[in-house]
Amino acid sequence: MYKVDINSDLGESFGAYKIGMDEQILKYISSANIACGFHAGDPLNMAHIVNLCKLNDVKIGAHPGLLDLIGFGRREIKITKQEAKDYTKYQLGALMGFAIASEDKVSHVKPHGALYNMATKDENLAMGICEAIYEIDKDIILLGLYNSKLIECAKKIGLRYASEVFADRAYDKDGFLVPRNISGSVIHDTNLVINRVVRMVKDKVVDTIDGKQMTIQADSICVHGDNPNALEFVKQIRKRLEDENINICCIEEVLKK
Amino acid sequence: MYKVDINSDLGESFGAYKIGMDEQILKYISSANIACGFHAGDPLNMAHIVNLCKLNDVKIGAHPGLLDLIGFGRREIKITKQEAKDYTKYQLGALMGFAIASEDKVSHVKPHGALYNMATKDENLAMGICEAIYEIDKDIILLGLYNSKLIECAKKIGLRYASEVFADRAYDKDGFLVPRNISGSVIHDTNLVINRVVRMVKDKVVDTIDGKQMTIQADSICVHGDNPNALEFVKQIRKRLEDENINICCIEEVLKK
Amino acid sequence: MYKVDINSDLGESFGAYKIGMDEQILKYISSANIACGFHAGDPLNMAHIVNLCKLNDVKIGAHPGLLDLIGFGRREIKITKQEAKDYTKYQLGALMGFAIASEDKVSHVKPHGALYNMATKDENLAMGICEAIYEIDKDIILLGLYNSKLIECAKKIGLRYASEVFADRAYDKDGFLVPRNISGSVIHDTNLVINRVVRMVKDKVVDTIDGKQMTIQADSICVHGDNPNALEFVKQIRKRLEDENINICCIEEVLKK
Amino acid sequence: MYKVDINSDLGESFGAYKIGMDEQILKYISSANIACGFHAGDPLNMAHIVNLCKLNDVKIGAHPGLLDLIGFGRREIKITKQEAKDYTKYQLGALMGFAIASEDKVSHVKPHGALYNMATKDENLAMGICEAIYEIDKDIILLGLYNSKLIECAKKIGLRYASEVFADRAYDKDGFLVPRNISGSVIHDTNLVINRVVRMVKDKVVDTIDGKQMTIQADSICVHGDNPNALEFVKQIRKRLEDENINICCIEEVLKK
Repeated sequence: MYKVDINSDLGESFGAYKIGMDEQILKYISSANIACGFHAGDPLNMAHIVNLCKLNDVKIGAHPGLLDLIGFGRREIKITKQEAKDYTKYQLGALMGFAIASEDKVSHVKPHGALYNMATKDENLAMGICEAIYEIDKDIILLGLYNSKLIECAKKIGLRYASEVFADRAYDKDGFLVPRNISGSVIHDTNLVINRVVRMVKDKVVDTIDGKQMTIQADSICVHGDNPNALEFVKQIRKRLEDENINICCIEEVLKK
Repeated sequence: MYKVDINSDLGESFGAYKIGMDEQILKYISSANIACGFHAGDPLNMAHIVNLCKLNDVKIGAHPGLLDLIGFGRREIKITKQEAKDYTKYQLGALMGFAIASEDKVSHVKPHGALYNMATKDENLAMGICEAIYEIDKDIILLGLYNSKLIECAKKIGLRYASEVFADRAYDKDGFLVPRNISGSVIHDTNLVINRVVRMVKDKVVDTIDGKQMTIQADSICVHGDNPNALEFVKQIRKRLEDENINICCIEEVLKK
Repeated sequence: MYKVDINSDLGESFGAYKIGMDEQILKYISSANIACGFHAGDPLNMAHIVNLCKLNDVKIGAHPGLLDLIGFGRREIKITKQEAKDYTKYQLGALMGFAIASEDKVSHVKPHGALYNMATKDENLAMGICEAIYEIDKDIILLGLYNSKLIECAKKIGLRYASEVFADRAYDKDGFLVPRNISGSVIHDTNLVINRVVRMVKDKVVDTIDGKQMTIQADSICVHGDNPNALEFVKQIRKRLEDENINICCIEEVLKK
Repeated sequence: MYKVDINSDLGESFGAYKIGMDEQILKYISSANIACGFHAGDPLNMAHIVNLCKLNDVKIGAHPGLLDLIGFGRREIKITKQEAKDYTKYQLGALMGFAIASEDKVSHVKPHGALYNMATKDENLAMGICEAIYEIDKDIILLGLYNSKLIECAKKIGLRYASEVFADRAYDKDGFLVPRNISGSVIHDTNLVINRVVRMVKDKVVDTIDGKQMTIQADSICVHGDNPNALEFVKQIRKRLEDENINICCIEEVLKK
């Protein structure tokens, strides 16, 4: 039987600043990536989202980012491997505090924004992140882009990992996401997007932007929940996956043979 | 046999900014209170100090503070119980990340600066801090001022606790520290200070600023290590305690009957 | 002829975080209080709002706050007079940079949130703020609560000042705002609110929460523009003021005899 | 007669964190580049240094940096031209607040650390910085590396500029500083360093690391003052310049024919 996880970035509000429709999106996903206070998020919000995850039976994941609140963690900062490692430990640990206090645990780690993008291609940073997770708890699963240095490093050191795919984003011939500033990088046709997802899950194949086909591993699908349209899309994709007899479950379940 | 712990605040450097003689003071203390990034400290520094603690056989403690780097956590901020609780969870969790990664653990929590002072008298904040620790790990020991709301709340909820005393600070008739801006609040005569400490440990008594005597519990002595004189003082107090056959050991050991 | 200014807090977005309907509210006010990056706001947003003010012929004012982004400047922090003074200079100067670059100038300063509330009653802080403004440019007008220490200090040192009133907030017998957590502190009946405003402007009188009357000086009316209802209210109050032949103009004009 | 300015980075302390021997170095320089709170510095410290500059007859300059306190502004962050521009306006404006309050003015702007290095080679960022200064006050002088995009952009838009040289740093064949991680990048022989400086000022020539000669314009010499050795070096270089009949004066004077 086919299985897939649905993950989304949550807990990105900060103090009086609200972002995201966390309460609603939680009803449709199996894994939450929770901002840990560096690029977004704050302690009260982390506590709140951890509790919501528990109530909705959604897995708690850390979403560590660069220390750049004003840039929402989306701007590249030249950091060292040691910084990538210790920033990840700090943020993962902080979230573990809330998870443990709720008698729950952190299931996975997915880096955010520029940290994710840099670590997709930079082995040094990818290794820093993977080592941080491994040293804290080697049962925690790294969630990264298929074909990325993140996944490669996790394999290398024996850390558990899962590949995520992006439903509405075009892939280039190397399996990387086509940058948003390039035409065709975001696919707007909902039917096309949903068909792509089903094919990625069932056939392990995706069409690249240059018209070829690429093998891909879709352990988890990344979805957004920060506006009503995004939410509507998640409902549709979820329905379609169910219609296709694809079991939506957490990463842990997906990874089981 | 008499037993006492010696604790000191460490890891208060931030990025390029250096404070404290952490490497040296670690040789003379049994418990370190490590800044967790709110009032001071940063991830790289936390990783570094945690490793140093392990090498020097010094217990790792969290030193959570208010989110006020520019004020070094020394300025009162009107926060709620929920904020005190979640700020403590966040910072304690972050330090646990580093401790676990070093195959070590957090032994105690001692709030910093204005958070410590406010929680000494404000039951709400004290309870927020104690609940945070209890919910994360009830084996962790709260380190607070004797007679404080912190200790009172720890008792109330069944959290382990230990009383610390300040070697060079005057006490008022209620057992609180005389504020630094009041004449006589800091005792400069080294011999007098050391004699006070010995008496607090052995006789559980201290002279208050109004010339009376007060019962006190000295499970741990707080010392500073941020300048050569402070360091010299720690060496002297340590030597004197040993001469008096007072065993210097970690809080865990002190609490054992 | 009667004259009054309408002021509103703007520019409180931060990076990816959006707060307020700045573009819309600017069409209905005469003075903008622009967040300066401490409690809210950021450089790009300040530049943006300054330009919008110019386009809409709205006066540019600084809205300095406490350095507490996570608390949106609403939590009291125990600061010194010197801190109040230098924080004000820093934030006022920063806004002046943008105003000058747009060939405009800063007309007034209104402290934000907890800084405003503390300085309403604490002469030390009020004086720090007033001195900061005076030393930078004594033509800049302090905008503060009627009867407050802020106004008192401005008078004392010869700084220009104007009194603002709050349309929908109850006043206590001393002329201070009734805290939001007290029942009756916010008046929800739109007609009542608008009648109060007209009376404050024309008769210089307001009913206090204990049923008495108090003299009040309404040089400016503070309105909110952070939600569609608030915006609708501003339109209504503006229309009514015009119907009453009350001239809506900037503070500078209001202060002219 | 030969003329040259001596500049140094100051005001880099932050809250309780102290960096630099500002009081001492101020006696030996003619221009101070004052940190403005982004990479270092805080309002109280800015006020303090501005006053010290006035007392020591040292020119006040803004030293804007990236918003990266934990990295001391030394790590590259991918920012846009608009960000470079508005970050410069904000920081320059903030310093102007303190300068005006002290009845003084900002004479020059020298970007800090990674912002300086990026703007040396990136025309977009360089233009953003230059436009910010020009729009605020076109009498303010940009201080940048000889041959840099910063100087080039200043020329292009009609902003005043001055070239600074680094006494102890090797230059590559393009006139850029050899990165610190390359052998030979820092020259340790004090005599050699001082001879280089004299030659740069008098003959407008410097030896590059590949053994050739390059024309250079030394309007200002950048010196450090953050440790006793650096301070001693400044005294020596100053004495030698005086012995060589080179007039040490502010940039304004150097730029006069």
